[in-house]
Amino acid sequence: MVAKLANEIQSGSRRALAKGLSLIESTLPLHQQQSYELLKLLFNPAQRSKRIGITGAPGVGKSSLMESLGLAMIERGEKVAVLAVDPSSKRTGGSILGDKVRMPELSLSENAFIRPSPSSTRLGGATQSTREAILLCEAAGYSTIVVETVGVGQSETEVSDMVDCFLLLTLANAGDEIQGIKRGIMELADVVVVTKSDLQPQATQRAVAMFTSVLRMIVPGNADWKSVCVPATISDANGILPVVATITQFFAETRWKSIALKRSEQNTIWFTTLLQQTALKHLSEHEVIQQFLRDAKQKISSNELIPSVAVYSMFQHLELQIEITR
Amino acid sequence: MVAKLANEIQSGSRRALAKGLSLIESTLPLHQQQSYELLKLLFNPAQRSKRIGITGAPGVGKSSLMESLGLAMIERGEKVAVLAVDPSSKRTGGSILGDKVRMPELSLSENAFIRPSPSSTRLGGATQSTREAILLCEAAGYSTIVVETVGVGQSETEVSDMVDCFLLLTLANAGDEIQGIKRGIMELADVVVVTKSDLQPQATQRAVAMFTSVLRMIVPGNADWKSVCVPATISDANGILPVVATITQFFAETRWKSIALKRSEQNTIWFTTLLQQTALKHLSEHEVIQQFLRDAKQKISSNELIPSVAVYSMFQHLELQIEITR
Repeated sequence: MVAKLANEIQSGSRRALAKGLSLIESTLPLHQQQSYELLKLLFNPAQRSKRIGITGAPGVGKSSLMESLGLAMIERGEKVAVLAVDPSSKRTGGSILGDKVRMPELSLSENAFIRPSPSSTRLGGATQSTREAILLCEAAGYSTIVVETVGVGQSETEVSDMVDCFLLLTLANAGDEIQGIKRGIMELADVVVVTKSDLQPQATQRAVAMFTSVLRMIVPGNADWKSVCVPATISDANGILPVVATITQFFAETRWKSIALKRSEQNTIWFTTLLQQTALKHLSEHEVIQQFLRDAKQKISSNELIPSVAVYSMFQHLELQIEITR
Repeated sequence: MVAKLANEIQSGSRRALAKGLSLIESTLPLHQQQSYELLKLLFNPAQRSKRIGITGAPGVGKSSLMESLGLAMIERGEKVAVLAVDPSSKRTGGSILGDKVRMPELSLSENAFIRPSPSSTRLGGATQSTREAILLCEAAGYSTIVVETVGVGQSETEVSDMVDCFLLLTLANAGDEIQGIKRGIMELADVVVVTKSDLQPQATQRAVAMFTSVLRMIVPGNADWKSVCVPATISDANGILPVVATITQFFAETRWKSIALKRSEQNTIWFTTLLQQTALKHLSEHEVIQQFLRDAKQKISSNELIPSVAVYSMFQHLELQIEITR
């Protein structure tokens, strides 16, 4: 069954791809096992896709940008997959606006595949299944993957850590100031886009100049690209052309060697983080550990206990026996 | 023996404090056990110290700033402890310059205690024992703790995550540009200091203006303080007064409630991270796991295996039995 699905995905079936993604997002143990078999069958280390991440507050123009960017990429012969990471959608069970409203033309294209945010999450946070979804879409022949996040929790950092090129969208405010950028996010951006530049032309100009100075100071994320800031209007398709041009330039100037190196570093972090989380999860399946963790958390939050003392005490009293089941 | 040491530390013995810190830094199992007993005895949740972190490249003026800041705090009736975090010193076994050269006056003060970077590290990275050293110094009556890092690896992020007020020192370059700031560091700063402002007055002015615009955009790290940028000369003590004034202002304007909230969040992250690391470390004591990890890492780095598939396969084949030894 998994082998058949893998074949169908590789031959381009959209239905099969959707089914594969559902397997990946499912938290059922059987589905989990099947999804890992599927990933093993489909994983193609030779593929050379473009992975683009986009973040920005609601209303900043992410949908318009993705629509124009997606259509421009398709015009150049690419197949485009759009994946959403939105940890807050767990509550509502999906995006507030449907894809057809958000990206009307792109959602109708045969060469585009749009997947809303998963409503459940596996271990590793809201972004865990998105990392695997990228691989699945690439196996299905999509050469450009766009990952969108609204930036709840740690999602921007996590998305920047699974893409080659990370875009931060922001508005130039009436009051000459841009506010509300979360700590540590700006510097993750390979491209900062100041949107709706037609509404506040002077403020946009100042914002672009300031971002340009700031980005010049920061050590580049890859050897071939220095982060830049571009203005964009989102009310018409032409206004987004500078952004499309910058992204094209990013992938033209960044050698595959640099991208491969970045991906390798991303994989190492992914492995280490997931390994630690999983190790703790497996220990936590035991009632005695759960009890210990509840006590420790309560005492730490009421400032009665030092974290390292809590961890030390717990493991000092544990004897782990490990058996290999098969 | 530990109870006696705890008493001596609380009564202000510098020798006892040094001995306690050595216990904390030791990787010997017996010392580790003793240090946790010591921390349990000395931990005082009621203390209200000031924890200040300082980072900046070598030559930017950290020593001069710490010297002046320390002496100013002592003049106000504080006792000051200076701790260093320098992951690179593992190689040389200590700081390149001695404390007496770096902070000549402060190192002679009876109300100052200076501790160089530990030469070995426990699980949790170079900063693990520093978190505990802060608690020990506070128990010994030090009311201001300064933690210095040269910023190798993740040390800035880690230090910013153990202090109340984090300072980033930087230079205004001749070429009007500040370069080489690591991604995500600038936005951790509560105070950015542009040092040696006398050497490049115009460049300093421009740098301060730019940092001020940038910091205004960023969501504050605590509810009571918006990050600021100040210029400083380090060749004479007066030139550092603006920085001392800003730090004094930080602790005057930031309510204890905000600091306590930040510390509680820091403790939660400390606990979770250390717990995951320790869980994996204990599993890794078993040869079968080590073998598995070696294989997986090799295959991941040669791009033959997906990280999540590797982790899943490993734990799918493991049966953990946990025994409580006492």
